[in-house]
Parts: sequence; structure tokens; C-alpha cells
Amino acid sequence: MSELSVNPDLANERLNATFNVENLTNLIYGGPEKVKRRRQIHKVASEDPFYKKLKPWSYCSVEEQYENALAKHNHIKESIDKLELNGFDDLYYYKSCVTPHEPGPLDVHYGMCIYFDMTGCVTSHEPGHNLLDVHFGIFIPNHGTTRDGGTKGKMAGIKNPLKKEKGTYAQTEMGHVGKTTNHCVVVAQLFTQGTCHGIHTFMLQTRSLDDHSVLPGIEVGVIGNKFGFGTNDNGYLKLTNVRIPRDNMLMRYSKVLEDGTYIKPQNSKVSYGVMVYVRSMIVKQAFSALAESCVISIRYSAVRRQSETVPGGIEPQILDYQTQQYRLFPLLATAYALYFAGNYMSTAYSEGSQKIEKRTTRGIATTGLKAFTSYAASSGVEVCRICCGGHGYSQASGLPKIYVSVVPACTYEGENTVMMLQVARYLMKCYKDKQQGSQLPGFVSYIAEIPEKRSCMDEHLSFSCLVKAYKHRAARLIEAAAKQMQSLIQSGSPAHEAWNKSSVQLLCRSSGDSRTNEVLKAVCQLYSIHGILENLGEFIHDGFLSGQQIDYLQKAMFILFEVIRPNAVALVDAFDIPDQVLQSCLGRYDGQVYQALYDYARMAPMNQTEIHSTYYTHLRPLMNPLTSNYSKL
Amino acid sequence: MSELSVNPDLANERLNATFNVENLTNLIYGGPEKVKRRRQIHKVASEDPFYKKLKPWSYCSVEEQYENALAKHNHIKESIDKLELNGFDDLYYYKSCVTPHEPGPLDVHYGMCIYFDMTGCVTSHEPGHNLLDVHFGIFIPNHGTTRDGGTKGKMAGIKNPLKKEKGTYAQTEMGHVGKTTNHCVVVAQLFTQGTCHGIHTFMLQTRSLDDHSVLPGIEVGVIGNKFGFGTNDNGYLKLTNVRIPRDNMLMRYSKVLEDGTYIKPQNSKVSYGVMVYVRSMIVKQAFSALAESCVISIRYSAVRRQSETVPGGIEPQILDYQTQQYRLFPLLATAYALYFAGNYMSTAYSEGSQKIEKRTTRGIATTGLKAFTSYAASSGVEVCRICCGGHGYSQASGLPKIYVSVVPACTYEGENTVMMLQVARYLMKCYKDKQQGSQLPGFVSYIAEIPEKRSCMDEHLSFSCLVKAYKHRAARLIEAAAKQMQSLIQSGSPAHEAWNKSSVQLLCRSSGDSRTNEVLKAVCQLYSIHGILENLGEFIHDGFLSGQQIDYLQKAMFILFEVIRPNAVALVDAFDIPDQVLQSCLGRYDGQVYQALYDYARMAPMNQTEIHSTYYTHLRPLMNPLTSNYSKL
Repeated sequence: MSELSVNPDLANERLNATFNVENLTNLIYGGPEKVKRRRQIHKVASEDPFYKKLKPWSYCSVEEQYENALAKHNHIKESIDKLELNGFDDLYYYKSCVTPHEPGPLDVHYGMCIYFDMTGCVTSHEPGHNLLDVHFGIFIPNHGTTRDGGTKGKMAGIKNPLKKEKGTYAQTEMGHVGKTTNHCVVVAQLFTQGTCHGIHTFMLQTRSLDDHSVLPGIEVGVIGNKFGFGTNDNGYLKLTNVRIPRDNMLMRYSKVLEDGTYIKPQNSKVSYGVMVYVRSMIVKQAFSALAESCVISIRYSAVRRQSETVPGGIEPQILDYQTQQYRLFPLLATAYALYFAGNYMSTAYSEGSQKIEKRTTRGIATTGLKAFTSYAASSGVEVCRICCGGHGYSQASGLPKIYVSVVPACTYEGENTVMMLQVARYLMKCYKDKQQGSQLPGFVSYIAEIPEKRSCMDEHLSFSCLVKAYKHRAARLIEAAAKQMQSLIQSGSPAHEAWNKSSVQLLCRSSGDSRTNEVLKAVCQLYSIHGILENLGEFIHDGFLSGQQIDYLQKAMFILFEVIRPNAVALVDAFDIPDQVLQSCLGRYDGQVYQALYDYARMAPMNQTEIHSTYYTHLRPLMNPLTSNYSKL
Repeated sequence: MSELSVNPDLANERLNATFNVENLTNLIYGGPEKVKRRRQIHKVASEDPFYKKLKPWSYCSVEEQYENALAKHNHIKESIDKLELNGFDDLYYYKSCVTPHEPGPLDVHYGMCIYFDMTGCVTSHEPGHNLLDVHFGIFIPNHGTTRDGGTKGKMAGIKNPLKKEKGTYAQTEMGHVGKTTNHCVVVAQLFTQGTCHGIHTFMLQTRSLDDHSVLPGIEVGVIGNKFGFGTNDNGYLKLTNVRIPRDNMLMRYSKVLEDGTYIKPQNSKVSYGVMVYVRSMIVKQAFSALAESCVISIRYSAVRRQSETVPGGIEPQILDYQTQQYRLFPLLATAYALYFAGNYMSTAYSEGSQKIEKRTTRGIATTGLKAFTSYAASSGVEVCRICCGGHGYSQASGLPKIYVSVVPACTYEGENTVMMLQVARYLMKCYKDKQQGSQLPGFVSYIAEIPEKRSCMDEHLSFSCLVKAYKHRAARLIEAAAKQMQSLIQSGSPAHEAWNKSSVQLLCRSSGDSRTNEVLKAVCQLYSIHGILENLGEFIHDGFLSGQQIDYLQKAMFILFEVIRPNAVALVDAFDIPDQVLQSCLGRYDGQVYQALYDYARMAPMNQTEIHSTYYTHLRPLMNPLTSNYSKL
């Protein structure tokens, strides 16, 4: 669309912010240098004519989406050298800009082999994964047995396929099983000497390396259309009398000898590092999804005016309605909470101590945070979408695409309920340890703290009192769960709350210049207070919070709305997400919403002709004579 | 797919039900005769080869979906006489079977003119509606003024366009503005004698009745692709110097005389009846959406087995996991609550007293119930989808389609937050009336009841005590809101809870044979108890419920899970929703889930060739030589 000036309402919002946006952006992305580099990469990506000439994804069939994804992939590969992109951040920023919310069909292959774009690869393979299970479940048991000898499956194109831990993990799905891949790893029951040894993994070549034709006994295809993920050929696989040579079993942990003797794995905690890494990437992605949705819905709410108070009078910005603030501001606060939590995780874990206690803690921490953040982000994105009214429902808003790309994170890499139960079990263990007087890891030490009868909360709502309230609630729920296992653990509730606590704690650690701090302090208070008010019962159940203290909190929430209101647009601007990534007519930096919606509409395939062909085939017959059936339809 | 026997797990579930499913089905659909007729209609609809030969919707482009919708529409029109379909139920059952979750492109036109398929028509026009506003907002003010004379716009094809109230309402959108319609009603500012009189409605012809060409000064098209609603050509309209003759203003209420004098409407409550009707249809639709999602997720949870307890041992049905019950059973209970609430509404309101007090009450009641049910259903459908794991994400599950078709109901026909605020304002008025000693309408009379200090709840959890708890909570929140307007009203909270209360009350009114009653009693108790536990803070805030009473409730919930577990499948079977309506591989009556998923996959366009064209264009270049960039991607 033609260059337009910034929408005056939005320009005005930016004038009225009480802090320096650039400082906050630097805080988020690790300093001016990194921000500069990030913008350079976004700039070249946004200006590349190759991406501009592609049809908008929402007007593409699934097949076109897949084809564009491959075309983009090849172009990205060329661009890496041309643009001298180096290191994780460079590639992450570039890919998130040119394939926003579009997991690539080869991400799993590359991601799992070489540790890049782990997010993409994980998001990409899981929806197909279940169907894969199913078909293995159905078709493999009688054929998956291993025997002596046989030649190694060809490993062309796979880097150290059986060497490195991450390499092993990679092969749960190479590229995808559908149309792209020529190898995959079969997850199937192992039978030797007439006994079943449970699920093991086997390398299997599915297609010829010469002409990509499907090998004998193998049936492979895509699983069909999904809620999203049009760019991925998630596949199914059917095997009939396929013999897998013993050497193609992935034997780093369990082994089968030539005589068929089965040897158990030494250590059951396989590919732990990758799992932790993948889950921390999901946390990162959950933050991005919610942050982008807040950018879109808050900018739009500053531009959109509705419901004039006097006939013909000026309509207020919908961001001025407290109901809109009540829905959006806590989500904005949550986005910042997810950022600080995710950031804390990845730094803490890149230190990577190998002590087993540390490793367990690390694993549990990412497990809980994965479930907590993916759920918080998914539900939040939908609220942002609904806050945009009818326009949020249009693909032009960009929000449906963000939702369908983030919501599977509740399912893949460990279904959230299962994750929460793992955390709950761990917390129960910690409670037992505490009772036996043994020391607890730092992030669960609150379980061992001497409980206070009453909250120290007063009208000043200090962070220490807020955090204490969360610690108390979490500790109480853990104790209640330990005493009454069934009901509470089953709901995963103590686990969830334990995580809510941590996010509060982490968000409240933020730092920057004094004005930035002031706003972040308000954001953190809102997150904490809203979290308490939303789960009031759990805080007052044992009388820890008094009626008066609750009144403090309720009043404070609406005061915080007033503090955040003038900074709302600035707070989302600080995420510094370019229009190219947002792909939203509503969230554009310049706020030229209606022109953008109009341009989007005009691109629709059905608008390329004045009279649609269906007029001649279906409508004209209806119009004359005006049939008697009108009164019935 | 080939005929298969019923999945043994599902067959077993049906054997173990403790009540007679047919009795409950008769209770839901108004007796054996009506159930029989309903099934006849579903049968002929399901067997009609015309619908069978259409490509599955999820493999269609938006343009194909629109074309199929028109083709279906014409076939339905023919079928009505052939099958002698008569009355609302006949048509509703037939259309819901052959166009499940597919609002037709002509529904608004027919619906609004002649009162049928009101749901379809409403769902169909709204997502476009906002954009419409926008463009009128932008382009009309200077051109929408009325002047003397001019000839009447041609009204061909519109039944009594200006006579009946519902006819008037109809014309907010006829068919659609996009490609189908030739007339529409412009909603625009009225200026006469230099003054703006606010928004009024004007009949406008957009296309020629001879060749469907667009008339001068008019630009019309579709708004582009949406989250769902592929079958609807929701449109935008741009007017440049278009003159609308005065007689084309819809003047039933406000009038403009020949000299331009403006005459205010007598009664501002225009098209009240239609609004009430439309909203009660939304309630009906919300029930269907949640009921269908429960059918799918509960049947699938009975078929799906996961996580063997001993290696090689049998995996339990996921419906046996308490976490799955914790998520699905309260939704099943909610579906029944929505049914009884919606049913109560439509019967109560078809009586249709004209007394103004009754009319207001009726309006407020549907307003609140519309918001409450559309939100409860939308969020519930997504939980059902996520409970199906990775398969829920596939369009094969049918759940994404149900979600995108029901969630707009939170936005159209009155955005839910706005609706809740209307109810809240009404409740504030009732509270004031109470203080002034005037009598309150029956369904809000609890506001005037003398408050009890403590709940009468004991381990028997009688309905009267449960209902009293909800009444008490609602009354307390209304009082709190009245005293502290801002914070509580703004969140719409008392309004929402007032409605939650009513649903509880209504669900507990159910009747049938003793065994059916027993199960429905458990369902009602679960709905009530879960609702309390989910909002515990609001029940114990003033000490109405004691810690011990809460323990009763928590224990009771898990006992109710055990009561409902053997009846879960029977309770969804009782909704008697045919596979044709569900369109779900996971929710099939016969439970042959995996064969159905496999058949769905094989139909995918990308599976029609062994080697996809992209192998030659994109993949082969990658494979040889194995490029140096692997380590970077």
C-alpha cells in the first residue's frame, strides 16, 4: 500500500508515554548493539523482493503454502551466505521475519541435526506424530522385529546421524514423513527372542535417493489439512512386511546383540539436554506469540473509536474503555512476565551444570514453564483476537494465524496436563524431602519456609508481600495436595500455581532506567495483583489475605490501569516487532488500519472479477421467477 | 469408508450405561414422535448422493466453499418440496445436517425476511459488518444525506421489504454485500437541514437486476479470508457520490419529510422481537456446538488408549484418567445446562407477552444468556479439542470447524462485554428498585431476598443449598458492584454470575424416568459444584461457605466423576447427533477412528501423486551435493 503518515491517535499515544521506549527495547534484546543488528536483519529481510512477490499466505491453498515454504527455504539458504548471517540470533531473527509463524518443512531435519530453529522443528512434527504412532501401533508390531546382519540404511544427507545425542533425537522425524523426507525414524515395539522390550527407535529409508520414489512395502503421505501448519507436510506412514536391519536400530542406549540378546539402557534419562533446550524454545515462542498479539490488539484499540457518547459527537478510543483495559492490560503484563521468565531460563540453563540434581531441577523447571507459558500464551492470544471485534476474526488481523501456530504447544513436546502432573509429582517429592529435613533446590525452597499466618500486604502492595502471597498459596496447595493427593494433584493445580509464583518473582526482577523501572513496576504489580484476584479463593481459603487486603488489591488494579494506559502503546512498541513479522492490518506501526484492510480485501481472489462465475451457474436461476419457496427457506 | 463394526471399547461403554439413552433423547427433543421425525430427516439428508459427491470442505479453497454453498442452497430449495419438509424443526434439522457449521450465503436474505435460519443469517453477516461500518464511516457522511423525490429502489425479490419489523431488520444485510447480493441496507449518518441525526438505514441497490453488474459510484467485494465462514462472501462496500432517494430511507421509525424536516422515532426499542429471537437462536447454537464437541471428545477418549502402565501391557482408555474427566465432564454438564437454559428461554419467550415490563425482562434475559452461553460454549469447544491431543488439531477431528463457527457469537449480535454491561446496568437498577421497596421480576427476585449468613450446605449437597449458594454469591456481587460501581461492573462479573446462577437453577429442573433423573442429578450437581470450586473466592469472600463445606464440595466432585464415568458415552449418545452433522473422524458413532483418519488422509490433494512436483523444483537441488550450508540452517 502507498506510504501513509502515522495515524494521529497512535502518534499521540507515543507522545504521551512517560518512559523512553528505546531503553526498554535495549533491555529486552540485550543492549543497543544487539538491537541494531536485529533491526539490520529485519530490514534486509523486509526489503528482499523475493518475499514480496509471494501471494499472501491466507489466499494460498495448503498445497501452495507448502510450495512457498520450500521456495522460501531455498532462498533463505542462499541468503545466509549473501547476508553473512551468523549465530543463532541472526538466523532466528531472519527466519522469524520471512517465515512468521510458518514452521518450515525441513526445520525438523535441520533443527534436530544441528540444533537450530528447534522451535520450528518441534512445532512442525507433532500434529502428525500421533497419527504416526497410530499407524505404527497398527502396522509395525509384527514386522518391527530385528534380526541379524543386513546392510546399514543409507544415511546420505544426515550429519552424524547416530553420533550426537541431539542427532539421535533428530531422527524421530527427519524433515517430515509426508512428501519431503526420504528417511525417518520408526518408533515401534521391539521384539527379540519372542519377548517385547517396549518402544525403541529404528532408522528407516522411505524413499529412493535417486528418484524419490516410495520404497517397497512403504505407504507414505500427508495426514491432510489441519487447523494451521499449512506449510508442513505432516505425514502418516504404513509399513507392510518391511524388514529393518538390526544395525538400523538406534543403539546408543538399548542394544540388541547379533544373537538377538536385548541389553537394557544404562541411563533412562536420554536426550535430556535436547528436551530441555526444546522446551525453553517453546517458552521463547510463547512469549513472542503473546507479545505480537498484544502489539496488534493494543495498537488497534488506540486507533479504533466506537460508540459515540453524544449523537454526532466524537467516539472514544476503545482503549479508553475500562473493559478493554481489563482484558488487555493483564495480558500485556503477562507477555512481560513470560519474557523475563523465558530469559531467566535460557541464561540459567546455558550455564549447563552437569550435576544430576541440577539436571533434574532444570528438567522440571522447563517442564513446568513449558506448560504454564504455552497455556497462558494460547488463551491470551484468543482474548487479544476477540478484543479486536469482528476484525479480529479476519485473517487480515494476523491473529488467527498466531493462535493456530501457538496453541499446539499445549499438546506437543509433552501434553500440558501430563507436564503439570510431572511437576506435581516432583513437588510432592520435595514436600517429602522437606519433612525428612533434607535441603530443597532454590526455586522450590519456599516449600520449606515457616508459614506465616497473615499476609504483610498493606496499601503499598510491596513486591515482597506480593511474592510472599504467591509463595504462601503455592506452599499451601502443595501441602493440601500432599495430604489429599487425588483431587488437587489430578488437576495439576499446585504445579500451575508454583509456576505462576515463579513468573511473578522473575518479572519483579526487571531493571532499567528509573522511568522505565516505574512502568515495569506497574506492569509487575498488575500481573501479580490480577493473578491473585483471578484465583482469590486459593489466597483467602486459609484466611491468609483479609477482606481489607483484597479491597486494597481491587482498588490498586484500577489505579494501575491508569498508570499503564498512557504507556500501553509504548510498552508494545518496545517489543520492536516489525510489520513484516506481525503480518497484521490492525497492528501496523503506522496505524493505517482501514486502508490496509481495504488493500487486503482487494487482493482476494474472488475480487479479481466484477461478476463471480456463480452468478451464472447458481444465482440467476434463483432471481427470476421469484420462486414460491422463498417463504420456506 | 467400508462398513465396520463398532469399536469394542465404545460398544462396552454403551453396555455399561445405567440409564436408557432413548428416554433422555426423547426428553431433549420433545418426545418419541419428534425424535422419529428428526431421524427421518437426518436419514434422507445423509443418504442424498448430491451431498456425498462434494469434496470435503477442508480440502476446498474459500472460493470452492462459497461455490459449494450456493450449489447446496439450490439443492436444498428443490429438496424442500420433494421431501415435504414443513415447519421450523424440519428445516433446521435438514440444514444442520447438510450444511453443518456452514452459514449459507443467502441465509441473511431469507432468514431476515422470513424468520428462518436466523442463526445462520446472523453468524453469516457479522464478521463483514464491521468493515462495512468502517467504509460507511469513511465514505458516506458527505453523500448519505437525503433529498426530496427520487424513485423507489427496485425491491424485486424482497418479500414485504418495508412492512414487517423482521423485514426491516433483514435489510441490514441482504444475502451479502460481496458477490451474491444486489441490494443492501446502508447504515449511515443522516444529515438534513445541515444537522446530523445519527445513524439511520437506507435501502440501496448495488448491482443491476439484469446482469448483476455493479452500479455507478459503487465498489463492492468480499472482505477476504477469515478464521472460518468460508461459505460466506462477507463483503465491503465503497460509495462515491451515490445519491439515495429519500423514499429509500427505512422510515418506519424515524422519518424525513419532503422539506427535509426530521421526525424522531416514537419508540427507541425497534425490532425488539427479532433481536430477542436472534439471541435465543444463538443460545441454541451455542448448545449444539458444545454438545457436538463433547460427543467427539468423549467418544474419542473412550476409544483412545495411551501410556501403558507395564511395558507391553494394555494401555488404559484416556477417559479413565481423572485429568481427562476433570476437563471433559464439567463441559458435558455445561452442555446439558445450556440445553435446559436455552429450552426454557425459547418456550418462555414464545409465549410472548407484550407487557413492557415483560419485554424488558425478556430482552435482558436473552442478552445475558447470549453472552454467557456463547462464551461458555466457545471456550468449552477449545478444551474439547485440546483434550483430543494432536488429532484434535487436524481438521479431521471436526473440532476446529466447530470452534471457528461458534466463537464469532461472542462478537456478533452484541459484543459479549457490552451485553454483560447492559445486564449489569439492569441489575444495578433492580438493586435500586429493591432499596425503594418496589417488586422485582421473578428471575432477579433473589436480589431482594433476606441474605443468610451461612450456607445450608452439608455433605448431601441438596440442590436448594447449591442454588442458594449461587443466589447468595450473585446477590452479594450485585450489592458490592452497586457500592463500588467501577471495579466490579466493569468486569461484567455480577452479570456473568447472575447468569451462572440461572443455568444452575434451570439445569436442576430436569425430569425423566428415575434412572435418567439419577444421572441428570449427578450432571446437575457436577455443574453446580464445579462452578463453585472454579470461583471459590466469590463464595467464601464473606464466609458464606466454610472450609469444611468446601471440602464436601471437593470430595463430591470426584465422587460425581465416578458416577458419570460409566454414563459418559451414553450421555453424549443421548444428544443423538448423526455422523453427518459431526463430520468428525474422532467422534464417529462406530468409533472406527483410525480407519477414518487414514481415509481422510488419503483424500488429501497432495496424496494424489506419489512424488510431489516440488521434489523436482525444490528438493532435488538440495540433496546433491549435500551443501555446506547445512550447518547453518
